[in-house]
Amino acid sequence: MKVDIGNALGGALGLTREDLETLDDRVATAHERIAQGRRNRDHGYAALALPETVDTAAIRETATAARERAVGDGSLDAVVTVGIGGSALGAATIAEALGDESGDAPEIVTLDNVDPAWIETRLAGIDLSRSVVNVVSRSGTTAETLANFLVVRETLADAGVDWTDHTVVTTGEAGNLADLADTHDLPRLRVPEGVPGRFSALSSVGLLVPALAGVDIEAVVEGGARGADRLAPSVFDAPAYAYGATAYALAERGARVNALLPYAEPLERYAEWFAQLWAESLGKDGRGQTPARALGVTDQHSQLQLYRAGPADKLVTVVRVANGPDRAIPETELEGLSYLGDASLRGLLDAELRATEASLAAADRETVRIEIDAVSPAALGELLYASEAACVLFGELADVSTFTQPAVEWGKSAARGLLGESTTESKQVRDRESFVVE
Amino acid sequence: MKVDIGNALGGALGLTREDLETLDDRVATAHERIAQGRRNRDHGYAALALPETVDTAAIRETATAARERAVGDGSLDAVVTVGIGGSALGAATIAEALGDESGDAPEIVTLDNVDPAWIETRLAGIDLSRSVVNVVSRSGTTAETLANFLVVRETLADAGVDWTDHTVVTTGEAGNLADLADTHDLPRLRVPEGVPGRFSALSSVGLLVPALAGVDIEAVVEGGARGADRLAPSVFDAPAYAYGATAYALAERGARVNALLPYAEPLERYAEWFAQLWAESLGKDGRGQTPARALGVTDQHSQLQLYRAGPADKLVTVVRVANGPDRAIPETELEGLSYLGDASLRGLLDAELRATEASLAAADRETVRIEIDAVSPAALGELLYASEAACVLFGELADVSTFTQPAVEWGKSAARGLLGESTTESKQVRDRESFVVE
Repeated sequence: MKVDIGNALGGALGLTREDLETLDDRVATAHERIAQGRRNRDHGYAALALPETVDTAAIRETATAARERAVGDGSLDAVVTVGIGGSALGAATIAEALGDESGDAPEIVTLDNVDPAWIETRLAGIDLSRSVVNVVSRSGTTAETLANFLVVRETLADAGVDWTDHTVVTTGEAGNLADLADTHDLPRLRVPEGVPGRFSALSSVGLLVPALAGVDIEAVVEGGARGADRLAPSVFDAPAYAYGATAYALAERGARVNALLPYAEPLERYAEWFAQLWAESLGKDGRGQTPARALGVTDQHSQLQLYRAGPADKLVTVVRVANGPDRAIPETELEGLSYLGDASLRGLLDAELRATEASLAAADRETVRIEIDAVSPAALGELLYASEAACVLFGELADVSTFTQPAVEWGKSAARGLLGESTTESKQVRDRESFVVE
Repeated sequence: MKVDIGNALGGALGLTREDLETLDDRVATAHERIAQGRRNRDHGYAALALPETVDTAAIRETATAARERAVGDGSLDAVVTVGIGGSALGAATIAEALGDESGDAPEIVTLDNVDPAWIETRLAGIDLSRSVVNVVSRSGTTAETLANFLVVRETLADAGVDWTDHTVVTTGEAGNLADLADTHDLPRLRVPEGVPGRFSALSSVGLLVPALAGVDIEAVVEGGARGADRLAPSVFDAPAYAYGATAYALAERGARVNALLPYAEPLERYAEWFAQLWAESLGKDGRGQTPARALGVTDQHSQLQLYRAGPADKLVTVVRVANGPDRAIPETELEGLSYLGDASLRGLLDAELRATEASLAAADRETVRIEIDAVSPAALGELLYASEAACVLFGELADVSTFTQPAVEWGKSAARGLLGESTTESKQVRDRESFVVE
């Protein structure tokens, strides 16, 4: 992975190389804290130790057991994740990027919302009797996840399928789902201690579904390890820190928004995963940078106007994939398209990426390019790890509590209150007066 | 459609009802300009006259002709849009929200990116010999669209299918695609004059694909007409203006971000459509509000931390759908879930929405609720129309050129230059020095 911060320097927000040199002492101190946290497996920092601590053999074993119970030697139709937020996004990011959509690989279904018609449609579209359902909740009490699980279980029963043959559980040491797994002897994985959901992509939480989908999860973890090896006590030596420190320094100078555009469809979910990582880790104490998820080249025709001519309050992060499949653009009799003549779709995609960078540079707007070799297991593992390390560095520099999410917990409790349970938060819930125009 | 701005008043950004009363004179003046523009079919404003001017009969006729040429009396497997930005998003928004996914309706495929492997996978997943391909480009020269069309045409040829039987063209009065339609006698629709792509959902551009997918497009247009009828020269009388004026007034007070969360999966694409509308129309002259597309309840577990505890620089727009299919949450033996006992999935979805509003209100953060009756053709038509009217009002109040997109045009030309064509912009393209950390 390479990070090119050239177009983040000398723009409207006034960041210079000298600023980064000045910041580098603080980066070294932060790195020391991060390295110590990794060694001690401190809360949160433990996520950055996952490439060493994750037990891929256990994940493989559980995947094999789940698969055999569900379909024996037969082929899987779908792998269904029942989870939300950090319990779902890592697995979806890896499985969707690397799963073989066109081959015999199972469909990846992620039930991360409770919209009733949508759930029905998603379940109707797969053969549940040839599927594995992975229920993911650390606490075993997440309302949306448990409600969806109960619905899926009922749907299996209605179809005359024994749900215990099709369910695997990923949860904490104790709780509802742990008890359920014990009672029914379900395949089960442990959510690692000290690893917040949004940092759990390289753990059991993020790797079971990809394993079921035929992804080389060992290579994903090796990529993560490469990301870990490349951390170093300077912005100028560590790509992850180059990104995190540049984003932080730009945020301090007014970049309130971080718009992330992967120029690769398989990384669409990565942008969503990144948005959670960035928002939930850094949005605290009145600080943080709003992630705007986007996709190149599509969003050039939607967002570029704003990025180039709107407020100078953004970092635009472009993710380039250097290599991948290609297809020549056929020659054409149509006029005015001769410039496409010698091009390929990948060449066009790349020209559009460079045009976006150039267009923003010409308007003095800041961009950073993250580049990976290919959408491969190793490259994706490194990208996920480096994104996490960049986020942790930003959090250290901004002095926020990167690994907590009190506002989300508040909302969860308020929702339970609105459903009739008595919670402290539900008593504090008070809508302001409504003012309806209709 | 109702708009509840109660939770936008008295929050951290300090907007009051009195502020809106003061603003109301300017709203009345802007409304006068908008009404005049609609009457005169002025550039851009003509979009707000579409419910009167769109020829749904012609769209139906073209849909029928395209369908008969492609499959005769048989069933359609897929409707493929080849377009990008405003040429694709309106159709996708309507067709995905209202198309019957579970029934015999055709699959909706939108080729709005040039990622080679993704294109191949998308095309491999459908039966092109039973599909209609709609190529959409006003100019007939949009690089991504034409490149994709050439690839689709080659794929059809490789499969031994006559492409002229499966292609319909939506384009301007003249140009490449118009010539192509003439030469091969293809079914063809005209992109309306004076209507920028992002405002074209209620025109031929947005309605042909839904018509092919079995959507009641006449009801969509009727919904748009209802939206038009409800415009009035005051914030307090017109839901669309209540939204637009509130968003503007909050933006003036520091709401740099507009996070839109529909609590409905069928409206996921609407959030993307809205993001283009908002970004491309208002992002000018250093002004504009960055749209952050999101989805309830999913993104509560991702973005709410930032919205509640990050910088007070946001308007959070929640879209509530009052009625729809439901499913009871089955009773459970699991402990700690008794609060789910009497609930349904829709009840849970709604409790989460109210918890988000309450959670943000308790932290003095601004929200607006847009509410529609159901995800129905009429309600969606009104929502789209009202969103456009809100955007136009915002543009009038902010004094920006709402209907142009010079920065996108600049980027398109720069991309052509990078592919070897000589353009003015390509000569101005100059990357700043790169600074790579690897």
